[in-house]
Amino acid sequence: MKAKVYVTLKPGVLDPQGKAIQHSVELLGFGDISDVRQGKYFEIALNDAVVEAEAQAAVTRMAAEVLSNPIIEDYRVEFEA
Amino acid sequence: MKAKVYVTLKPGVLDPQGKAIQHSVELLGFGDISDVRQGKYFEIALNDAVVEAEAQAAVTRMAAEVLSNPIIEDYRVEFEA
Repeated sequence: MKAKVYVTLKPGVLDPQGKAIQHSVELLGFGDISDVRQGKYFEIALNDAVVEAEAQAAVTRMAAEVLSNPIIEDYRVEFEA
Repeated sequence: MKAKVYVTLKPGVLDPQGKAIQHSVELLGFGDISDVRQGKYFEIALNDAVVEAEAQAAVTRMAAEVLSNPIIEDYRVEFEA
């Protein structure tokens, strides 16, 4: 079983890294870009023996408590069989 | 229009950051995890006036040339209206 966790800055939180990327790509000639925000992406592989409901609960807790900072970041979890 | 770009290490490329995360979460009591790999995630907002086909081509080129390192990374692009 595989889980994908996406961590993004909450709306309203400044993203200087995203702004730097936006500025750079504009200098490189990519126009029409109004905003770039950078986030993090994790692929988590779980042992096949694990019970699906338990694994989903564990990964969701891991995303909330370890992989993201709840003060400034949101997270989203997807599961694949 | 909005584009999402996911950048991941190619299979076979060592991911020390992912290994460090895996080790940490194991110490924190999350078992049954066989692998963790970290990637990058970008949300790119485009001006509404832009032609869709052109924007898709531009974002795909940006993902290939700027946001990812083709030697060690793969990228995936998704578009939302």
